[in-house]
Amino acid sequence: MSLFEKHKDILNKSIEALHKRAFFAAYPEHPSPKIYGETADEDGRKKFQGAMGRKFEELLQGDAESWIGVEESPYLQDALNIQYPAYSTETLIENAKKAFHQWRKVDVEDRTGILIESLDRIKERFFEIAYATMHTTGQGYMMAFQASGPHAADRALEAIAVGYEELKRFPSGVIWDKPMGKYNIKLDKEWRAVPKGIGLVIGCSTFPTWNSVPGIYASLITGNPVLVKPHPGAVLPIAIFVAEIQKVLQENGLDPNICQLAVDSYDKMISKDLAEHKDVKVIDFTGNSAFGSYLEKLDGKAVFTEKTGVNSAIIDSVDDVDKVAANLAFSLTLYSGQMCTAPQNFYIPKDGINTPNGKVSFDEFAQKLVDNINGLVDNPKAGPFVLGTIQNKNTCSRVDEAKNIGGKVWLESRSIENPMFKNARISTPVLVEVDAADKEKFSKELFGPIGLLIKTNDTDHSIALAKEMALKHGAISCGAYTNDPQIKEKIADEMALAATPVSFNLVGGIYMNQNAGFSDFHVTGGNPAGNASFTNPEYVVKRFTWVGHREPAKA
Amino acid sequence: MSLFEKHKDILNKSIEALHKRAFFAAYPEHPSPKIYGETADEDGRKKFQGAMGRKFEELLQGDAESWIGVEESPYLQDALNIQYPAYSTETLIENAKKAFHQWRKVDVEDRTGILIESLDRIKERFFEIAYATMHTTGQGYMMAFQASGPHAADRALEAIAVGYEELKRFPSGVIWDKPMGKYNIKLDKEWRAVPKGIGLVIGCSTFPTWNSVPGIYASLITGNPVLVKPHPGAVLPIAIFVAEIQKVLQENGLDPNICQLAVDSYDKMISKDLAEHKDVKVIDFTGNSAFGSYLEKLDGKAVFTEKTGVNSAIIDSVDDVDKVAANLAFSLTLYSGQMCTAPQNFYIPKDGINTPNGKVSFDEFAQKLVDNINGLVDNPKAGPFVLGTIQNKNTCSRVDEAKNIGGKVWLESRSIENPMFKNARISTPVLVEVDAADKEKFSKELFGPIGLLIKTNDTDHSIALAKEMALKHGAISCGAYTNDPQIKEKIADEMALAATPVSFNLVGGIYMNQNAGFSDFHVTGGNPAGNASFTNPEYVVKRFTWVGHREPAKA
Repeated sequence: MSLFEKHKDILNKSIEALHKRAFFAAYPEHPSPKIYGETADEDGRKKFQGAMGRKFEELLQGDAESWIGVEESPYLQDALNIQYPAYSTETLIENAKKAFHQWRKVDVEDRTGILIESLDRIKERFFEIAYATMHTTGQGYMMAFQASGPHAADRALEAIAVGYEELKRFPSGVIWDKPMGKYNIKLDKEWRAVPKGIGLVIGCSTFPTWNSVPGIYASLITGNPVLVKPHPGAVLPIAIFVAEIQKVLQENGLDPNICQLAVDSYDKMISKDLAEHKDVKVIDFTGNSAFGSYLEKLDGKAVFTEKTGVNSAIIDSVDDVDKVAANLAFSLTLYSGQMCTAPQNFYIPKDGINTPNGKVSFDEFAQKLVDNINGLVDNPKAGPFVLGTIQNKNTCSRVDEAKNIGGKVWLESRSIENPMFKNARISTPVLVEVDAADKEKFSKELFGPIGLLIKTNDTDHSIALAKEMALKHGAISCGAYTNDPQIKEKIADEMALAATPVSFNLVGGIYMNQNAGFSDFHVTGGNPAGNASFTNPEYVVKRFTWVGHREPAKA
Repeated sequence: MSLFEKHKDILNKSIEALHKRAFFAAYPEHPSPKIYGETADEDGRKKFQGAMGRKFEELLQGDAESWIGVEESPYLQDALNIQYPAYSTETLIENAKKAFHQWRKVDVEDRTGILIESLDRIKERFFEIAYATMHTTGQGYMMAFQASGPHAADRALEAIAVGYEELKRFPSGVIWDKPMGKYNIKLDKEWRAVPKGIGLVIGCSTFPTWNSVPGIYASLITGNPVLVKPHPGAVLPIAIFVAEIQKVLQENGLDPNICQLAVDSYDKMISKDLAEHKDVKVIDFTGNSAFGSYLEKLDGKAVFTEKTGVNSAIIDSVDDVDKVAANLAFSLTLYSGQMCTAPQNFYIPKDGINTPNGKVSFDEFAQKLVDNINGLVDNPKAGPFVLGTIQNKNTCSRVDEAKNIGGKVWLESRSIENPMFKNARISTPVLVEVDAADKEKFSKELFGPIGLLIKTNDTDHSIALAKEMALKHGAISCGAYTNDPQIKEKIADEMALAATPVSFNLVGGIYMNQNAGFSDFHVTGGNPAGNASFTNPEYVVKRFTWVGHREPAKA
């Protein structure tokens, strides 16, 4: 049985899910022994521990030209001392060029089978990837498992499914038979989906697999070889993905260099060299706006970016103010606000919020946020695990400085202790009140657990500011609370014009930060937060070109 | 019955045709009295004649700020003296902004019905459009009828169909129901296809409707208002389209400014002002490479271009050398080579061409091309009508100068007479032999009836040069003749990598210039000849943004 036959059922289910957009997941998100095996967690932890202090020798991409590794665990506050094989730009490109002509000729079914098979192999390593993610990104265990393992694999599968569908959208051939009156003109036509060339995927430090695998798999399914350039601080999680992809390629008689890991270090970054190389035709990037915008302007390349944004929460009216405060407190606290979907600007009318029990004033609501954040972070069974740790020192400094933004400090950031990792770098959320007139204070992304409570004239004012921020500075998510249908439609319409998805009235165990494969498009591509979207058709069709040939049909 | 109901059948057939890519046409291409009515031709001619010397007052876009009209008939060598209402950039943009918020809220079905209805109205004016096209572009009658009428309408319908399908690709809403173990999280999700903003369509002088209507209808179906900026020399054909669109909009209670004509004159061009305006978000352009490349670099806009290219014919081996020479002679002569799909560079091996009767030498083949061109242009019943006239003086000069390129002149351009239009500007094709080493001579588009006979070492050399030209300078079409399956696949593969469609072994009444709606993708978007393709999904999906909102499902 071919790999395509083996995985055909899950492919079909994935394609169906894309179009229904109801709940679907191929990889269980619960790290349960019942699902993954009694010893899976411990085995994974041991494998991760065994990887530390060694060379990562699983890759099949040929003798290393040098060995590089600068990862540090934000939990241990210590180097991981894992060394990865490194290669010059020229070696990487030459390998990829060679691999290109092999991979582009592999048919779509075989590519699909190989790529889904690689995800099944990666599934066996979800726990190892979880620990690798914790100790590079600072995520808590649960998020590290879910985001880097099953959720990432689902996003990869989604990209494969969108790719498969687009590549099959038009026939490979047809007889075109045109009646001309006395005779017919018959042409034998064929169409080829021609991959653009070498793909480059540049990863980020906070979500090293989730943000990178859609681009990797979207480029691969469309026939492009891929160079995976991780953030120097978060290599291991994605290195495991690449190793498994390479193994499946090799088992199927293909060149493992169809997908190469391209590591670098802070003192000698290779992203620019690779991105500017004439043979690199497709670029995926997650990271800062300056570099993302530079990439978007490169000539003759299909560039897909996720950059920074300023996410809003618009509070108009609520049914249960405590549940709302609890929900938003969690959203800001989760992974210490180091999610591209975390809220930053909380727009609250100066006259307060309507509730069934009357108005809740601005100050009362601010205090409820403070109380809920404190309640969460001071709960020793929840706080440290929800917060995780801060990935890097820049974020720590930003949190420390936030209280000096200028405005009433409702909540100062504190350090709490993680019972398992005494050295962990933890900063609890900071909340600062900002006047709506002080626009420059809330017009940029303050990555980390930083919340700005912005006092607006009224909800229309809140909406206008949230829309303006999204249009000018980008936004990936928006939370809104209202029980007025007209205001709801106004928010939905205005934020849609700013290409920002809105989560309305979330309470309980679902948060505006969360984003489900096969259902929620991640980033819309329509505002400065990024030009690409996981995974709409545009994300895939720009990676290849339809070319049609024709000739007179044989009689 | 709604307009959508009225046109649902043709919509469904169009969508089916897109995917089958077999022959399909909704608008008959034959200007037959049986199809279009006994007096249709004469009525159309009279209407065109009646339009000359007057104001074009059909448009519904409000009082003119001035009247502009500089069209000249290349057949009559005289001004048409038709004046069109003109408006400042600010007026056009303000009208479009107002119209935007109305049009974007019209549902997809109603937009579809209105747009297909407009094509049906335009069908009633195909003959008038044909004469308008002849007397602005210089096309012969048959091409003017077919290209500007039925073929353009089919391309417009194709864009509507692709748009409808993409807009319906994902559900408008779904209940997302995620099992969490002890409970489910249920979200009520909805998706909106949000139009990007004002569209601008910049037309060309040679195909004023065919090249413009795909962009117009693609932007309109996706909810964007459109400014139609014709070439100052070819306004009337597309003005009739715009007028009919406006009438159907108004009849349906909508703002006619959803589609505005935006004319200018040579001394005060408005394309740049419009293109750079912050509210213009989508741009379609057909024309020269310099302006097209400038547009492609504009920030924050979806830009679709068709620029210039260097099209090749690769001659390796043939079954019937005379039929091949006749076919290529016709391709070069048709509309005096003023088609973006006409061949320019003919690559012929220095040792000649294999045929079943032995080798045909380079010189013999060149002479056969010469003889076939002369036979065609000197046939008074065919020549003048196939050639049409030269649209503008720059092309005349280019043809005159071609004999000085440097190389043996196999055929000089001549003037012949058009029996109906004594003043018509006619230049028959010129053929010049060029050595393959003189690459700079054949590395640019020489728009007009100019053929370069390039003597190559062998077919591999021919392929390499054709590919290089396409990759560096763009190509929209390629003709190739070979009866060797391996060489055929090599050409197919190498030209596919250069994103150039190949017509193999065409003889008889089908030519590499021709391009059928619903089947042939026009321009691939994958080489410098243009970044867009009529009509692939990318052509439509970049005109809107998917935005999803969600909230807890009501119990």
